[in-house]
Amino acid sequence: MTVKLKQKIDTIFTDIHNTFYDDIQSLNALIIDRLESPVPLIQQVACHLIQAGGKRIRPLLTFISAKMHGYRGDRPVHMGACIEFIHTATLLHDDVIDDSVKRRGLRSANDLWGNKTSILVGDFLFSKAFEFMVADKNPEIMKVLSKAASVIASGEVLQLSKEKDLSLTEKEYFSIIESKTSALFSAASEVGTLIADASEKDRKIMADYGHKIGTLFQITDDILDFGLPKSTPGKNVGDDIKGGRITLPIIYLLKKKPAYKTLIEDCYNDCKDFELSFKKLQDALVEHSIFKEIETVIESIYNSCCSLLTAMPDTQEKKFLQELLSFTIHRIK
Amino acid sequence: MTVKLKQKIDTIFTDIHNTFYDDIQSLNALIIDRLESPVPLIQQVACHLIQAGGKRIRPLLTFISAKMHGYRGDRPVHMGACIEFIHTATLLHDDVIDDSVKRRGLRSANDLWGNKTSILVGDFLFSKAFEFMVADKNPEIMKVLSKAASVIASGEVLQLSKEKDLSLTEKEYFSIIESKTSALFSAASEVGTLIADASEKDRKIMADYGHKIGTLFQITDDILDFGLPKSTPGKNVGDDIKGGRITLPIIYLLKKKPAYKTLIEDCYNDCKDFELSFKKLQDALVEHSIFKEIETVIESIYNSCCSLLTAMPDTQEKKFLQELLSFTIHRIK
Repeated sequence: MTVKLKQKIDTIFTDIHNTFYDDIQSLNALIIDRLESPVPLIQQVACHLIQAGGKRIRPLLTFISAKMHGYRGDRPVHMGACIEFIHTATLLHDDVIDDSVKRRGLRSANDLWGNKTSILVGDFLFSKAFEFMVADKNPEIMKVLSKAASVIASGEVLQLSKEKDLSLTEKEYFSIIESKTSALFSAASEVGTLIADASEKDRKIMADYGHKIGTLFQITDDILDFGLPKSTPGKNVGDDIKGGRITLPIIYLLKKKPAYKTLIEDCYNDCKDFELSFKKLQDALVEHSIFKEIETVIESIYNSCCSLLTAMPDTQEKKFLQELLSFTIHRIK
Repeated sequence: MTVKLKQKIDTIFTDIHNTFYDDIQSLNALIIDRLESPVPLIQQVACHLIQAGGKRIRPLLTFISAKMHGYRGDRPVHMGACIEFIHTATLLHDDVIDDSVKRRGLRSANDLWGNKTSILVGDFLFSKAFEFMVADKNPEIMKVLSKAASVIASGEVLQLSKEKDLSLTEKEYFSIIESKTSALFSAASEVGTLIADASEKDRKIMADYGHKIGTLFQITDDILDFGLPKSTPGKNVGDDIKGGRITLPIIYLLKKKPAYKTLIEDCYNDCKDFELSFKKLQDALVEHSIFKEIETVIESIYNSCCSLLTAMPDTQEKKFLQELLSFTIHRIK
């Protein structure tokens, strides 16, 4: 990532974070408050993860969506906390699955406290998310979020069952990422409209927007895993391959140049010199313009997402949604 | 367990299972129906676990409780499936935590499919449970079940944080088992009254009954882990110690005869000859009448649970509740 782009991305988030400053402060306070537990270990782990933060994109989608549709009040904060809990629970379990040692630039919870703790605290966060959801008493929101949670889990199992499976199709890849990632982005955006009691049409548009931005987020994340074109801090290059996940660059390279199958298999199967094989793979992806091909896919999703926004009235929130969209794809510029 | 007692226990369940035959059949069908997924791995694992069965005590508590309070309809089956899903999700994760190779006499899911699969399918079952709960649309039931789920998780983390901690007090032990076990028994019983729209008083009585029978169930389970007085099929003797869990027999022995601390530490810390040390521990528990002491505790909970039943009108369901209670404590006779 170039310095200029990093500055641009920082500016996007500064604007959004400034506008939703109070909501984000309330969200953080609420998260800490809700993690209060007579079991010290729960608080330690959960606070480590949640306070480590990230950009809070999912709750922000709920905040923007609710405000955009006329809601003024604190329910987005409550539902945002709930969404962040679901997200954090999946991160905890993902890190156990992948045996990760880093998360958001810090040591991962499983590395610090062990896998057992991560599994159980993940369960705790997940169940707490449902408790908050139930306390909000909106049946539609509960339906959307509980559905999203089961779709995420189903996507994660599908991904696991296709581990190291080089016959994975593009369609199957999309089915995985739309479940494990797009579903919660979509739910977060849709929940904002439900809080605001927006029209069915607006609800559908926001769910679509969330779905598409989530898909873009995951595709670009999968590209970043190859450390190309530019690496991003806090991200361990090669993690997807080490974790056995087949992503779009691999699918495209295999389709275009099947001769790379052996090299790819080497990378996925703990070859002696992973660094060297991975370097060859990076070179092949560049040489055969694989990232450029994926950019066409990205552009198509990006454009259809922009079309959704075009139909919306010009508001500051619409500008934010556009900026978040740009942020998502600019991560790989 | 003596042959005569086994027969008695079988008779209890035959009576109850005969009475609720249709409900149990519907429950099984519903469980399989709800596990339908485009992801074959989900179905394989979940069906393995759920079809392996067990006695379905928790859903039975819901069936009995709802019928006892005048409800006739299929909602207990739906909520029973939901409760069984929560229970099965916790079993999947427990087996990963404990590195168990057996569950209900069969190979455990983690042994068959690996830890990663067990973690993710557990998450799937858990989220599906919430989806069903939401579909039932009863806010009070959702509140009770989501609370139970977070209490269970919290109890599991507390237990983990006290792993191999010989300073664990009796009070802390009860806090752990009441969270990880009694909470769901209590919720299952209470949900029956909520379905039947029973009085607040009846709701409280059934929640109390469930809590107490759950506590008895766990205490006796912890005794069975010592393979004494009689072993039970499908149970791996010594699993609690291998898993680092401090249970009531250990707490009582340490309190009465602190000199056994070294032997107990040996057992918990992978001593060279576990079998021999464990045998010495079993002998010590018998020699110092530890199980007899625990029986006094059991009796006291049993009696207070019977008092709850005394206040109820004489019905077939009351008889079943009494029989389930007897079953729980007779497991260690």
